[in-house]
Amino acid sequence: MVHLYEDERIDYLLAEENRRIIQSPSVFAFSLDAAFLARFASLPRTKGKILDLCTGNGVLPLFFLNHSNVPITGVEIQERLYDMAVRNVELNRAAEQVSMIHGDLREMPAYFKNDKFDLVTVNPPYFKTTDGVMRNENEHLKIARHEVACTLEEVVEASSRLAKSGGKVAMVHRPERFVEIIEAFRKYKLEPKRVRFVYPNAKKEANMLLIEGVRDGNPGLSVLPPLYVYEEDGNYTHEAEQMLYG
Amino acid sequence: MVHLYEDERIDYLLAEENRRIIQSPSVFAFSLDAAFLARFASLPRTKGKILDLCTGNGVLPLFFLNHSNVPITGVEIQERLYDMAVRNVELNRAAEQVSMIHGDLREMPAYFKNDKFDLVTVNPPYFKTTDGVMRNENEHLKIARHEVACTLEEVVEASSRLAKSGGKVAMVHRPERFVEIIEAFRKYKLEPKRVRFVYPNAKKEANMLLIEGVRDGNPGLSVLPPLYVYEEDGNYTHEAEQMLYG
Repeated sequence: MVHLYEDERIDYLLAEENRRIIQSPSVFAFSLDAAFLARFASLPRTKGKILDLCTGNGVLPLFFLNHSNVPITGVEIQERLYDMAVRNVELNRAAEQVSMIHGDLREMPAYFKNDKFDLVTVNPPYFKTTDGVMRNENEHLKIARHEVACTLEEVVEASSRLAKSGGKVAMVHRPERFVEIIEAFRKYKLEPKRVRFVYPNAKKEANMLLIEGVRDGNPGLSVLPPLYVYEEDGNYTHEAEQMLYG
Repeated sequence: MVHLYEDERIDYLLAEENRRIIQSPSVFAFSLDAAFLARFASLPRTKGKILDLCTGNGVLPLFFLNHSNVPITGVEIQERLYDMAVRNVELNRAAEQVSMIHGDLREMPAYFKNDKFDLVTVNPPYFKTTDGVMRNENEHLKIARHEVACTLEEVVEASSRLAKSGGKVAMVHRPERFVEIIEAFRKYKLEPKRVRFVYPNAKKEANMLLIEGVRDGNPGLSVLPPLYVYEEDGNYTHEAEQMLYG
């Protein structure tokens, strides 16, 4: 059996019916963002390898398990979350395919040297530390949500340096920072190729964006059809439900 | 009466029931793009002034007539289209509010010097001259659709220099060039503030984008709800129909 700390629970991993995930509301529990990013990223299925930065409790690697046979590495800076991710790999008997690193994403390019990835995924902190909404959060949530341990530009730089030429970097973030994201992608030779905006419903502004760039790719962006999360009655839309629950 | 050249016709200006517009399929006829840009731009109603670059036959100034009392200037490089725009002003008895300039947008910042605008609108050529789709077009359509007379960067530079600090620049363009647009906006101190993607329908990729920047504005982009043009049965959606026909 896998050890559970106080306040941890084991959840079903939504559509991945054979998978379970250890979560903790006070430390880290995955959200829609991770599930949507997992569906959006161009996954290598049989060849290559995947790196997931800011992996948290390892939710993205777990989402990928049923859809790809390639090696997957997760990187997490918070020891408490890294520990949860390691136990999640164990819980899902996935140690042959998934490995976890306790480390700082900014140090990963030097760590991996010329060892590059076909896909880098990242669900980074969304908020600047100056945003002022972090006062009441505990240290774990603060680091996961705010740019305490890394900035957006550092995330993009590391992702780009870890992707092979022609490899992909897929990220989820907030639309209000789209301009910064585009600029950082271009600065670090990631050409934005696909973007999908996620809207709470058809009448509201987008509150999430999914973006994928190709390292050293040619210019030319596709803006994919919008993804709506909720119907007017508050239920998930058919598409969101399919993504979450299959 | 206004003189009409061979191949010219007078059309209704859609929702602007009291307005008419001289068009010519072989020289210049406005499209959905112009109508959507006219609805999207943040129009000064009673104070300030508006500049419309690449005005063609003056369609945007005509769209603005019923919704704003401020002075409007249009700029067109093609003499044949400028002439059509002048006759459109005459046809709509709008000479007190609208003036047309036959000139190159790249020369307008020097021409207007410190005389700056509250809103600059532009529906520029969408295609690079290397795109190869321009072989069979006549000279008028070629210049309106391809970057023969000005590049995207030149359009953004001129627009920015013609906007006052805090003034707005609204543009319609193609999503595949969104990254270039963002980069050019930022290079010339236009902060992208509002973007709306236009989709043929809910299942397809966006094929048009509306973007508005604020000269010297603060970062923070809003991604507005998507605009769909057609229903599955090929009719206009309610929203598109409202924009076009009121």
